[in-house]
Amino acid sequence: MELTLDRSAGKPVEQLIQAIKDAILQGRIKPGQRLPSIRKLSGSQGLSYYTVVSAYERLEINGLISASQGRGFFVEAQPARLASMPRLPVDEPVDNGNLNAFWRLFHGSAYSMKLGCGWLPPSWRDTQALARVIRRTANFAHSTLIEYGDPLGHLPLRQNLAQHLLNTLGLTLQPDQILTTLGATQGLDLVIRHILEPGDHVLVDDPCNSNLVQLLALRGAVVIGIPRLPEGPDVIALKDVLTRHRIKAFFINSKFHNPTGASLSPQNSFQMLQLAYQHDFTLVEDDVYGDLSNEQGNRLATLDGMRKVIYIGSFSKTLSASLRVGYVVAPTGLIAQLADLKLLTSVAVPSFCERFLSAILSDGLYERHLNIVQRKLRTSQATAHACFTRWGWEIFHQPDCGMFIWVRHPRLESTDDFLEKAYREGVLLAPGHLFSADGRQSPWLRINVAHLDAEKAESLFNLDKTTTAS
Amino acid sequence: MELTLDRSAGKPVEQLIQAIKDAILQGRIKPGQRLPSIRKLSGSQGLSYYTVVSAYERLEINGLISASQGRGFFVEAQPARLASMPRLPVDEPVDNGNLNAFWRLFHGSAYSMKLGCGWLPPSWRDTQALARVIRRTANFAHSTLIEYGDPLGHLPLRQNLAQHLLNTLGLTLQPDQILTTLGATQGLDLVIRHILEPGDHVLVDDPCNSNLVQLLALRGAVVIGIPRLPEGPDVIALKDVLTRHRIKAFFINSKFHNPTGASLSPQNSFQMLQLAYQHDFTLVEDDVYGDLSNEQGNRLATLDGMRKVIYIGSFSKTLSASLRVGYVVAPTGLIAQLADLKLLTSVAVPSFCERFLSAILSDGLYERHLNIVQRKLRTSQATAHACFTRWGWEIFHQPDCGMFIWVRHPRLESTDDFLEKAYREGVLLAPGHLFSADGRQSPWLRINVAHLDAEKAESLFNLDKTTTAS
Repeated sequence: MELTLDRSAGKPVEQLIQAIKDAILQGRIKPGQRLPSIRKLSGSQGLSYYTVVSAYERLEINGLISASQGRGFFVEAQPARLASMPRLPVDEPVDNGNLNAFWRLFHGSAYSMKLGCGWLPPSWRDTQALARVIRRTANFAHSTLIEYGDPLGHLPLRQNLAQHLLNTLGLTLQPDQILTTLGATQGLDLVIRHILEPGDHVLVDDPCNSNLVQLLALRGAVVIGIPRLPEGPDVIALKDVLTRHRIKAFFINSKFHNPTGASLSPQNSFQMLQLAYQHDFTLVEDDVYGDLSNEQGNRLATLDGMRKVIYIGSFSKTLSASLRVGYVVAPTGLIAQLADLKLLTSVAVPSFCERFLSAILSDGLYERHLNIVQRKLRTSQATAHACFTRWGWEIFHQPDCGMFIWVRHPRLESTDDFLEKAYREGVLLAPGHLFSADGRQSPWLRINVAHLDAEKAESLFNLDKTTTAS
Repeated sequence: MELTLDRSAGKPVEQLIQAIKDAILQGRIKPGQRLPSIRKLSGSQGLSYYTVVSAYERLEINGLISASQGRGFFVEAQPARLASMPRLPVDEPVDNGNLNAFWRLFHGSAYSMKLGCGWLPPSWRDTQALARVIRRTANFAHSTLIEYGDPLGHLPLRQNLAQHLLNTLGLTLQPDQILTTLGATQGLDLVIRHILEPGDHVLVDDPCNSNLVQLLALRGAVVIGIPRLPEGPDVIALKDVLTRHRIKAFFINSKFHNPTGASLSPQNSFQMLQLAYQHDFTLVEDDVYGDLSNEQGNRLATLDGMRKVIYIGSFSKTLSASLRVGYVVAPTGLIAQLADLKLLTSVAVPSFCERFLSAILSDGLYERHLNIVQRKLRTSQATAHACFTRWGWEIFHQPDCGMFIWVRHPRLESTDDFLEKAYREGVLLAPGHLFSADGRQSPWLRINVAHLDAEKAESLFNLDKTTTAS
């Protein structure tokens, strides 16, 4: 396959997509024909691995090519669809390395096992029940279809959230201590815009959710990573940083930390709070995975009673990512200020989504759903633990629930080749460097146990077996 | 009624709410009893007019008191509801003057005529049809109930939007030139965060949407107002500013400008574009009222073909404010960058809302709805013109459609007393100073003609009649 690319013109993903489209249109690649492997094409064209992956992914989403697990990518039988295909967006991320392109990969359908993704398998969600509640909400809540919502969030929803947080965390809250947001992401963005000034020093877990580091960088904050140990942040490293810098806030996952899956021990939680008081910084507790735990309490917010802690929650990881409903819990005065910022920058979360979620919470559907998901995850965690141990991998920490484990293999110094091998076999992984607070390389991988098919995964992950077999 | 307030403790709205609640609970004010008038209470307690308005409003929303048009506020018959009432949020706006509290007022139900509000009456919206489409969407789009949406926006929706913009503006667009946003507000915020740096000089219409000025201030931009004439921005003033400052962008309503209701003349549009090219600034065309026009084209984006213009649209003013779907139109590369920022700061617009809107657009429901709304607005504009002229008011410009007119009365130097009189009669108005680019006082009022009941309004607005009668 001959492709003409102008390397000086930039936008390699878009160029590659266009070149392949042209080749298909002009009949130089026929329907059913196999495309070059990702490695081969990236090598022959001097393109990065992810540029080719991104281009193939976009072509697949648009129905021009299809992936066949373990066999590669093939031109679809109906190239007539080309004519009506919209021009594809430029997939080149702007300044986030290849992160956003990588993120988009997880939304494709070409993979048999998305072990690297950050959410539950669609089959675990009860869409029939959700659709039923939506129909009911549409029938009874006509005003929410048209009117601006409350900038604080639909009041009955906030009342239901207060009840939920009492049940799950043992927190006694008034509805005006809760602000709904467009997922936890907008919650983080609002908190960051409100409490930080450019140049402020802030702490994050290392490793951590890389989106958080980017959000902080967007605000101009100076980000310092605190190494995460199985029981929580490394207190010695933390104390050292605190002697050297005036810290404004520490953004932390207390339960089922992303990416390691580990939770703060009670002792570590207490130390974090003690240091927050001594050094006067805010703990922003991002607890988006917290509802995957059935233990009551055990959060920084619960210990502290909402003085030094801003708590952020979400339904994206448990119920629905598309609803985009999250929330921030903080003292009343701060919530009022965040509500003003939310009103100014986006007005409100769609009322219909809030009303719908309120129905899901008040009729017990959410609680029943959590029980099922937690039971499944406990089983998946046990299976993953047994498998990865048997396959010779080191597990950072074995959580009882939650969706992640963090693993590395003693023989894999670099994960690059392993990632590509996995990709060829239809297994999408999340490499450790995506979670480094400073972007450095890492031998670790984040595994979403809910997506693990032990039988299919064995040939890939059992390196001894692979070596023997090949 | 005796109320104990501690003026040094701050939070006067919350204090007043608590004091009135206490008075009701302790039986010092009885069910059915009339509360002091707003003016009387604000005078006796040394509180601002809007503090009392805000407190009454919150008490009314919580069902503790009710407003009776022209008669005042009364304690509800069921004070038992007090026990279960949540603690009320602090209503004191933080640094936006009383703007946000004022904004919230418009969402109360105590007014017979919301002439100051910025949206159509609920009765003009076809909620039955919307509910029908929602039920249909819930039945057929289960995946959108749970999965993360496309950061660019649901592709079929963007295709429908491209078709809509071709029909209404004559713009030929690819879907990757369109980014969906959480209403036009998030669109503006994303554009402002992306194209501006702190200290950049930007222009706005004067008067203009005050939310815009706050968004720009949040980014640290230096905001300069350009006087708005009936045919568009004052070109002489604009040229003068351009000789003195390096301008990054001009944020402008080209059609049915908020608050004056006037649109750019073709000559003025051409001059704006010419100046944008000469002085290399971006025109950010905020066209949220544009769909209220049935004339094709006649926008800066149409003239320019999306080179110097970023176009922002929304469905909040026409179809539904609660859906929170707006969009930004710009060159592909810029849209990709804005999509990255959107992904980072909020991930996506709820997919269900996007899918639902896509259905509304593709089955022609939106177009039919616009036809009806435009016809009603043309009638309302004609009525308003006749009335305000007869009542002796000066009208800034008489638009053929859109929802606003901008009026002042030669005898009203200050609108303060008039606003309060209107408020007592259950008529909520939007005073001109809310729209001043620099917050200065103004003798103008923004009237939403869709909310005008000429018969009810006459006694208030016909100042000669009022004087004669009293």
